[in-house]
Amino acid sequence: MAGKRNAIVAQSGGPTAVINASACGVIQEAIASGRIDRVFGATNGILGVLQEDLFDISAEKPETIEALKRTPAAAIGSCRYKLKSLKDSRADYERILAVFEAHNIHYFFYIGGNDSMDTADKVNKLAAETGYDLVCIGVPKTIDNDLACTDHCPGYGSVAKYVATSAMNAGRDTEALYTTDTCTILEVMGRNAGWIAAATGLARRVDEDAPHLIYLPEVAFDVDRFVEDVKDVLGRFKRVFIVAGEGLRGADGQYITADTGKFGKDSFGHAQLGGVAEILKAIVEERVHIKARFNKLGTNQRSAMHFASLTDVDEAYLCGQAAVQTALSGQNGKMVTLVRESDNPYRCTTGLAPLSEVANGEHLLPREYINEAGNGVTPAMLDYVRPLVRGEAPITIGGDGLPVYMRFERKTVAKKLPKYL
Amino acid sequence: MAGKRNAIVAQSGGPTAVINASACGVIQEAIASGRIDRVFGATNGILGVLQEDLFDISAEKPETIEALKRTPAAAIGSCRYKLKSLKDSRADYERILAVFEAHNIHYFFYIGGNDSMDTADKVNKLAAETGYDLVCIGVPKTIDNDLACTDHCPGYGSVAKYVATSAMNAGRDTEALYTTDTCTILEVMGRNAGWIAAATGLARRVDEDAPHLIYLPEVAFDVDRFVEDVKDVLGRFKRVFIVAGEGLRGADGQYITADTGKFGKDSFGHAQLGGVAEILKAIVEERVHIKARFNKLGTNQRSAMHFASLTDVDEAYLCGQAAVQTALSGQNGKMVTLVRESDNPYRCTTGLAPLSEVANGEHLLPREYINEAGNGVTPAMLDYVRPLVRGEAPITIGGDGLPVYMRFERKTVAKKLPKYL
Repeated sequence: MAGKRNAIVAQSGGPTAVINASACGVIQEAIASGRIDRVFGATNGILGVLQEDLFDISAEKPETIEALKRTPAAAIGSCRYKLKSLKDSRADYERILAVFEAHNIHYFFYIGGNDSMDTADKVNKLAAETGYDLVCIGVPKTIDNDLACTDHCPGYGSVAKYVATSAMNAGRDTEALYTTDTCTILEVMGRNAGWIAAATGLARRVDEDAPHLIYLPEVAFDVDRFVEDVKDVLGRFKRVFIVAGEGLRGADGQYITADTGKFGKDSFGHAQLGGVAEILKAIVEERVHIKARFNKLGTNQRSAMHFASLTDVDEAYLCGQAAVQTALSGQNGKMVTLVRESDNPYRCTTGLAPLSEVANGEHLLPREYINEAGNGVTPAMLDYVRPLVRGEAPITIGGDGLPVYMRFERKTVAKKLPKYL
Repeated sequence: MAGKRNAIVAQSGGPTAVINASACGVIQEAIASGRIDRVFGATNGILGVLQEDLFDISAEKPETIEALKRTPAAAIGSCRYKLKSLKDSRADYERILAVFEAHNIHYFFYIGGNDSMDTADKVNKLAAETGYDLVCIGVPKTIDNDLACTDHCPGYGSVAKYVATSAMNAGRDTEALYTTDTCTILEVMGRNAGWIAAATGLARRVDEDAPHLIYLPEVAFDVDRFVEDVKDVLGRFKRVFIVAGEGLRGADGQYITADTGKFGKDSFGHAQLGGVAEILKAIVEERVHIKARFNKLGTNQRSAMHFASLTDVDEAYLCGQAAVQTALSGQNGKMVTLVRESDNPYRCTTGLAPLSEVANGEHLLPREYINEAGNGVTPAMLDYVRPLVRGEAPITIGGDGLPVYMRFERKTVAKKLPKYL
């Protein structure tokens, strides 16, 4: 190949407060290297590649790119499009390489979770098979913190900071009104892994602080034990603040929510729209006879840029930078990892893991991070998460007192191939 | 009476991020005046008075009192105990005066909404009737912003800032994932008044910004029109972000939620546990055939000290100070109000209104603040709320990266009367 080659960066899956900081690291490092010509963005992840829906990020204003560090969600655009195996989706993978070739793209930086690493791995393997010169490097991203091979994941520190603060705040509300509003349930994300729910344990500096009970997807949910737990806390503090991961399952392995599980229907005689929080609220009101209310932070927990962790933003950026440095150093087929070097003082650097290893792994909360009763976390868990939430990420506040976020101008790259998808 | 007299301060109803700032204003001004002996706190509002459950706030450390400005929810303790008329609850009112007399309390500062002003007014009237020397001054507090006689209410600016920021953040999340997660519903508080929902309009700086649709309790909810609204927005932006006040009602005046209304049952054939957000989600999925999800901020919106409005904190404090100054100036039976003197630059001072007038009033969103279609707000509404969210209230962050809040030591005041309640 003559002359400089282009790179593409894409974002995938559920957004986070810092996925754009990782994109910023990739883009700024690619530009600074002087060894990459254009950096393209794929609108909506791999879907944008398949549809040849690209825009020229290197044509964006430097201040727009810089503002990625202070903007939540996926500014390039994300997707939940899942490619199958190389055998079953070969046309898709061939299309990806065709788009890359049409635009002289030889570096593929994919910011995402294990599905994205799987996609990047397969694109990479097909490139090797067909002789197309391509470097695929993954950048970790997930609020769920469940990726293998890395100490933790960019995105987790910020959601941890936000949900712990939310438990602290709403916990004070419950404390103030315990004569009538005795029970509050805070539902947080995490369908398989309880890392997010576990992080709220940071809010409990003294025994009476919220949250008093934390229920995790890793522990089989037992309704009778739950009722006993609630009564016990009420006896001690006259109020109870509960955190629940959205993916609670019974001993049968089925989700306790009605959408997919059977618990809600069995217990209440009819289907319910709600999630975990509604179910727990109903149990508390029916079995403990106190009023319960719930807060469901939903997508607000993964987009809370206004109180994001500085550590998380910095590490997310670092992962993006490291991805480009790795690619230019001649390595390939790797995801950047975070390596914790020490806790006191906290020091973290980047490492590398094979894409395929990340693709096939899942990192759940280890048993030693969960208390014996299965309704809270251990000091070891808190030691793990504490450094990750430290520092307040700077944001830009407008004259109206609200955050200011960037959007790309999106100078579209002209399509060169027939329509696909 | 010989010597100095004592004051009591109490907090009532749903907490806010700044109700403690008002308490701080009362306490610090009372101490600074040199004309009041002890300042007592009534644990859990009027309930604490009735139960003679008092503690000596003036014995607390000055830094604990100062930290009230940076602590959400009601640190003295709040309640939802509602007293009836003087005729129907005379024993309660007499008990209140008996407790006051037993502890040489001649100043009563009640921080709350219109029910609290009603209580303070009736206590005051009975004192006058029975010749007990008492000064009752109210301090406004409500996130709902629906008190009469005041331009706005302490507590509103902070919830407005938080929900607008939340709409902005989650709006970016929806934007990033519009190919699959096309519709997001953000449920906010406000059972009768739409002030909180309306404030999210601040997040929409340009047309494509969230929230695209805002539904208010003041406007009769029509499901067909709602479906058309959603389709219209989808046509323009490929995604839709909806804010809904929790108290939406149909043209028949009934709440659209199943707990109290009939809509949910009629439309879906069975009772539902959920609130407004669940209903709207079900309508969108059933009638527009796109995936919808919802965030319900719940009590997190009224306790979000970590991103509270500095204007709000300052004004809440000012109201507390003004209450003491008013009491010491010889006035009685008044609530402190906020008077907006100008918008550019924003200037606000305090005024006074009779407790009885506040008690019997309700300030809903005026028609000119709601757009013609009834699914959004007007520039006049945004001009009204914009100054109230300005400035970031300082908080204390611990070494663990999370806010640090105060708690009182609560040096209990010895009871002098027989048990009551």
